[in-house]
Amino acid sequence: MTTIPPEKLIDGKAFAEGLRKQIAAEVQVLRDQHGIQPGLAVVMVGEDPASDVYVRSKCKQTGECGMLSVERRLPADTSENELLLLVEALNKDPAIHGILVQLPLPRHINADRVLNTIVPEKDVDGFHPVNVGLLSTGGQALVPCTPLGCSLLLKDRLGDMSGMNAVVIGRSNIVGKPMAQLLLKENCTVTLAHSRTRDLPAVVKAADIVVAAVGIPEMVKGEWIKDGATVIDVGINRLPGSAEGKSRLVGDVETAEAAKHAAGITPVPGGVGPMTIACLLRNTLTACKRLHGLED
Amino acid sequence: MTTIPPEKLIDGKAFAEGLRKQIAAEVQVLRDQHGIQPGLAVVMVGEDPASDVYVRSKCKQTGECGMLSVERRLPADTSENELLLLVEALNKDPAIHGILVQLPLPRHINADRVLNTIVPEKDVDGFHPVNVGLLSTGGQALVPCTPLGCSLLLKDRLGDMSGMNAVVIGRSNIVGKPMAQLLLKENCTVTLAHSRTRDLPAVVKAADIVVAAVGIPEMVKGEWIKDGATVIDVGINRLPGSAEGKSRLVGDVETAEAAKHAAGITPVPGGVGPMTIACLLRNTLTACKRLHGLED
Repeated sequence: MTTIPPEKLIDGKAFAEGLRKQIAAEVQVLRDQHGIQPGLAVVMVGEDPASDVYVRSKCKQTGECGMLSVERRLPADTSENELLLLVEALNKDPAIHGILVQLPLPRHINADRVLNTIVPEKDVDGFHPVNVGLLSTGGQALVPCTPLGCSLLLKDRLGDMSGMNAVVIGRSNIVGKPMAQLLLKENCTVTLAHSRTRDLPAVVKAADIVVAAVGIPEMVKGEWIKDGATVIDVGINRLPGSAEGKSRLVGDVETAEAAKHAAGITPVPGGVGPMTIACLLRNTLTACKRLHGLED
Repeated sequence: MTTIPPEKLIDGKAFAEGLRKQIAAEVQVLRDQHGIQPGLAVVMVGEDPASDVYVRSKCKQTGECGMLSVERRLPADTSENELLLLVEALNKDPAIHGILVQLPLPRHINADRVLNTIVPEKDVDGFHPVNVGLLSTGGQALVPCTPLGCSLLLKDRLGDMSGMNAVVIGRSNIVGKPMAQLLLKENCTVTLAHSRTRDLPAVVKAADIVVAAVGIPEMVKGEWIKDGATVIDVGINRLPGSAEGKSRLVGDVETAEAAKHAAGITPVPGGVGPMTIACLLRNTLTACKRLHGLED
C-alpha cells in the first residue's frame, strides 16, 4: 500500500468500514421500527481451510452488523439430496433473508443444481440465472458482491461515469460479466476483454476505467494505463516469498507502476477484498427489505 | 441491394431460406422417427396492423416448415388475467413447444408480467430473465431471435471469430445486450456502444465486426468502417418517399458508403430481417427437442 501516493489511493478497507457502519445503522432502524432482523445463513460442506476462514469472517461481520447469523456446517460426505433439502428449508425459513452456499462444494455435489435451488429473492451471491437475467435487463436483481463492491468504489471516486470508456479484463460469471453490466448501467462504453483479446495493451490504453479480474499476478502492466485513468484491481494472488519464506499478496495489476499513470487505484490487499463481504451484508439487508415489501 | 457488390453481400434472405429448409427437414425426421410435431402458439391482443402482418408471416412460415401453428387472437379489451390464464394453459399444453406473445400489448396489460409467465422452456423469444441469465452464464438458453440470426450470418461469413474486435451499437434487451453475449461466446473482444458513447466513429473504426442496432436511419457513416470489416445492419427504418409518395426502407448504416470499406455487409431489406422469423422457427424446434429430452 505504500507504493500508492495517498491522493491516488482508493481505500476499499476504509470504504467497507463506512459501509458496514451504515448497514448496522439501517439494521437498527429495521429492528426498532419494524421488529425485523435481517438473517443470513451460510452453508459450508466439508472442511476446506480457505473456506473456513471466509465463512468465519462472514458470520462474524454479519453478527457485528446486528443481523442474525446462522452457520450450517455439514460433513464432507453429505449427499446432494441432503444439501438440497437444507436449502429448501432455508428458502422457507422466515428468519432467513439471505442464503449463501460456500464454494467449492465436494465433487459429488452438482454446485449449479444447489445454487439454482436457492430462491432468487434470497440469493445474496447473485449467481442464480434469474438474478443474472434481471441485472442484464434492468430488473430488481441481487448483484454479485465483488462487482457490486467495485461499482460502489468507482461511483464514490468518479461520480457520473456517463460516456467513459471502461474495460473489464476477464469474463467470469462471478466478476467480469456482471461488472460489465454494472458499468453499462452507469452509461459507460464497455469493452469486455479476455485471454483471446489480441492487443490488450492498446485496449487498456484507451480506457478511462480499468477493472482487472483475471487471477494472474501483475498481468496488467503499469505502462498500459492511460494517464488519469481509474484502476480497480480485483486480483488477489499469493506469491511465494523470499528467503525468509513469507508469501505476499499481489493483484492482477503492477500497482506501483500503474499508480504513476492512474488518477486512482485500489491496493492489494485493502482494496476490493474488504468490499466483497460488506456487499454481502448489503445484499442481505436489501433482500430482507424486499421480502418484507419495504423500499430498497 | 444494388448498392452492394455481390462478393460483399451478406444475403440474409437466401440464408434464411436455406435455414428454413433445414428446419423443415429436421421437423420431418422428428415426425417420422419420434412421432413428434413441434408446435408454436402465437398470441396477439388487439388489432395493431404491423403486428398483424408479423403474426400472419410467422404463422405461415411455421406451417410451411411442417410445424403445428396455433394462432390465438384476443380482443383489445382482454384483461391481463385472461391473458395470463391463456399463457398458463399453453404452458401446460403438450402440443405446444413455443409460446410467443406479440408485442406491443394494450396499455392496461403489464407486458413484463405476461412474458415472465411463459415457462422458460417454451420462451422462444428468449426474453424471460432465466433465458437471459442462462445466455450470460453459458447455460442452455433460448436466445432472442434477431441477435441469433446476426450471429449465424457472422459465423457463416467469418468462421472462427476468436480475438476479433466486435462493436455492438445499441444496448437494447432484445438485440444489443444478447448480441454482445453471443459475440463474447465466439471469443470476440466485445465493446457495447450506445447513445452516451463519446467518440463513436473511433470506436467503430477499431472494429472487425460492427453490429448496428439503434433504430436511427443511416446513423453509422460509411467512412467510420474499417477496411475489411464485416457489418451487420439490424435497423429497419421507413423513410418518407419522394414526390411520388413511395416510402423506402433504410438501415442504421449508410450501406453504399460502408460497402466501399467493408468486406461484407447485410442489405436492408433482405439482410437481418428474414433471419428473425427463421430463428423463431429454429428456437421452436430447439425447444421441442429439449422438452422431449432429445439432443439439440
